[in-house]
Amino acid sequence: MSSFSDRLAAAIRAKRTALCVGLDPRLPLLPAELVTQHGPDAVAAVEEFCLRVLDIIAPIAPIVKPQSAFFEALGPAGFLALRHVLRRAKDLNLITILDAKRGDIASTAAAYAEAAFDVLDADALTVNPYLGRDAIEPFLTRARIDGRGLFVLVRTSNPGAGLFQDLNCDGLPLYRRVAQAVNDWNAGRGDVGAVVGATHPAELGELRAALPDVWLLIPGYGAQGGSAADVRRGFRADGLGAIVNSSRGVTFPFRPDDAKWESAIESAARVSRDAQRSARARSAFGSENSASRLTVLRNGDDA
Amino acid sequence: MSSFSDRLAAAIRAKRTALCVGLDPRLPLLPAELVTQHGPDAVAAVEEFCLRVLDIIAPIAPIVKPQSAFFEALGPAGFLALRHVLRRAKDLNLITILDAKRGDIASTAAAYAEAAFDVLDADALTVNPYLGRDAIEPFLTRARIDGRGLFVLVRTSNPGAGLFQDLNCDGLPLYRRVAQAVNDWNAGRGDVGAVVGATHPAELGELRAALPDVWLLIPGYGAQGGSAADVRRGFRADGLGAIVNSSRGVTFPFRPDDAKWESAIESAARVSRDAQRSARARSAFGSENSASRLTVLRNGDDA
Repeated sequence: MSSFSDRLAAAIRAKRTALCVGLDPRLPLLPAELVTQHGPDAVAAVEEFCLRVLDIIAPIAPIVKPQSAFFEALGPAGFLALRHVLRRAKDLNLITILDAKRGDIASTAAAYAEAAFDVLDADALTVNPYLGRDAIEPFLTRARIDGRGLFVLVRTSNPGAGLFQDLNCDGLPLYRRVAQAVNDWNAGRGDVGAVVGATHPAELGELRAALPDVWLLIPGYGAQGGSAADVRRGFRADGLGAIVNSSRGVTFPFRPDDAKWESAIESAARVSRDAQRSARARSAFGSENSASRLTVLRNGDDA
Repeated sequence: MSSFSDRLAAAIRAKRTALCVGLDPRLPLLPAELVTQHGPDAVAAVEEFCLRVLDIIAPIAPIVKPQSAFFEALGPAGFLALRHVLRRAKDLNLITILDAKRGDIASTAAAYAEAAFDVLDADALTVNPYLGRDAIEPFLTRARIDGRGLFVLVRTSNPGAGLFQDLNCDGLPLYRRVAQAVNDWNAGRGDVGAVVGATHPAELGELRAALPDVWLLIPGYGAQGGSAADVRRGFRADGLGAIVNSSRGVTFPFRPDDAKWESAIESAARVSRDAQRSARARSAFGSENSASRLTVLRNGDDA
C-alpha cells in the first residue's frame, strides 16, 4: 500500500494541478431545478448536487474536501449523504479530505478517527491542535494503519484567527509553535499536514520554509480573498507540497435559477485549475534541488 | 424564556448537586444482555443502553453530556440514536450538553450550531477556541436566540494538554488568554462557560477567581483521577458556578456479564452525587455574599 503522501503527489502530478474542490453545500444556493425535483427531500437535492459536482470536477481536480458541518446540519440523512459523496469521490479516484476539524483525546479521538476513516472512508481529516499531543496521537495511530493523512490547523484564513494564533509564545507566535509540533508529528513521512490560510501569504512562505516535508492545505483561495500569487509561496521548488482549496468559487459560480449551472461549475473549475497551475509552475525552478530553493525562501524571497 | 444560566442553576438547586453524567457509550463495555438481545444491531444496543442510563440517573443528576464521537463512530444510525438520546433527556427534564468540541468559522460554524441546537436540540455545546473570535461568534449568535449555552475549551484534563495551553504568552499561559476571551464573550450572562479539567486543581481555583460569572464545566472527575476535593475549587461561595462531569465512573461501574448493571449505575450515580454534593457544600460558607468569598479565593485559599 502506498503512503498518503505518495498517493497525493501522484494524483497532483496526473492532473498537473494541486486544486482541491471544497464541498460546502448550502440549500439556499442549490440549483432551483434540483430543489424542485426533490421537493421536500432537501437532503436528496444536496446529495445529488454534490454527486454531480464530483462528476464534473473529477477530470479537472485531484482532490475534494467535503465540509462535514453542512451535512451534519441536515441530520442523520445528511450524514448518510456525506458517506455517499465520499464513496462516489473514491470511485472517481479523487483524494478525499474530510474537513471536520475534530479534536479530542484518548478513546474519544479514536472514535472520531473511526468515524472519519472507517465509517466515512475519507483519505484525510482536518484536526484541531488545541488539546495537545494526546489530541493528535490517536488520530495518527489510526491514520498510519492504512495510509491516511491528517491536516492540523496551524494558521487559519479567517479575520479573527490571530486572537490566539498570533499570540507571542516566548518569542514565536502560537501558530509557529503548533507548526513545530506538526513537523515533529509528521517526522518526514508527509502524512501530517498543516492548514495555512491563503489570506496570510507571508506566513505561508515562512511555514513553507520551516516545514519542508509537510503538505500545506491552503484554504481561503478565491471567495475568501486569497489570490494565485498569494498561494504560490506554499509550493516547494518541485511544484509539490501544497494543496489549494476553492469552495464557493468553484461550486457556486451560478444563481439558483441558472439552468446552465453544470457548465458554470466546469468553467469555474478549469479557471481555478489554470490560475493555480500557473502559480504552481512559477513556484518551480525546474530544479530537483529543492533544498537550495528552500534556503532562498528562508531569506524572504517571493518565489 | 429563561436564560441558560438560570435554567442550569434551577436544575442544580432542585437536585442539590452539579453532577453531570457523561454518556460515552462503547460497544465492548455494554451489558452483554443488551448486546445479545439486539444481535447484529449494535446501534440499537447502544441506544437502549443510553436511554436506560438516562432513566436511572434522571432522579439523581441534573445534567447529561453525550459525547458525539461515540455516536458518530456508529455512522448515520448512530447520529439518529444521539438524537433519540437527547430527546429522551429533554423529556426527563435533564439539561443536555453535547460534547462535540466543534470549531469553525462563518457559515460553517453556523451549520455546526444548527446541527447541535436545531437538529439535535441540545441545551449547550462544547466548542474549541483555536480559530479565534469568528469561531465563537456564530455559535453564540445562534445560542442566544433561545437561551442555549456554549462551553469553550480552556484547560483540558488530558496529560498532554499543556503542550500549547501552558505556553507563556506575554506573561500569561495561553489558557489564561483563552479564559480572558471567554470572560469577554460571556459578558456577565452566564451562557459562555469554560471547560477546565479536574486534573488541574490549582488552575481551577485560579480560573474560578478570574471568571466569577462564568460556568465551569469540569471533566476528569473520577476515572481520569480528579477527586471531590480537587473539584471543590471550581465552585463559587454560593455553591453554584461549576458542573462536575463523571462519565465512565457512573455509566460503566460493571462488567459486561454483570446482570445487575442497572443497580450498579444507580449506586455509582448516588455515590458520585453525594461526594460531589459534599464538596460543593464545603465550598459554600452559607453566605449570600459571594463577592467577599471570591476575594478569599483570589488570595489562594483552598475553599
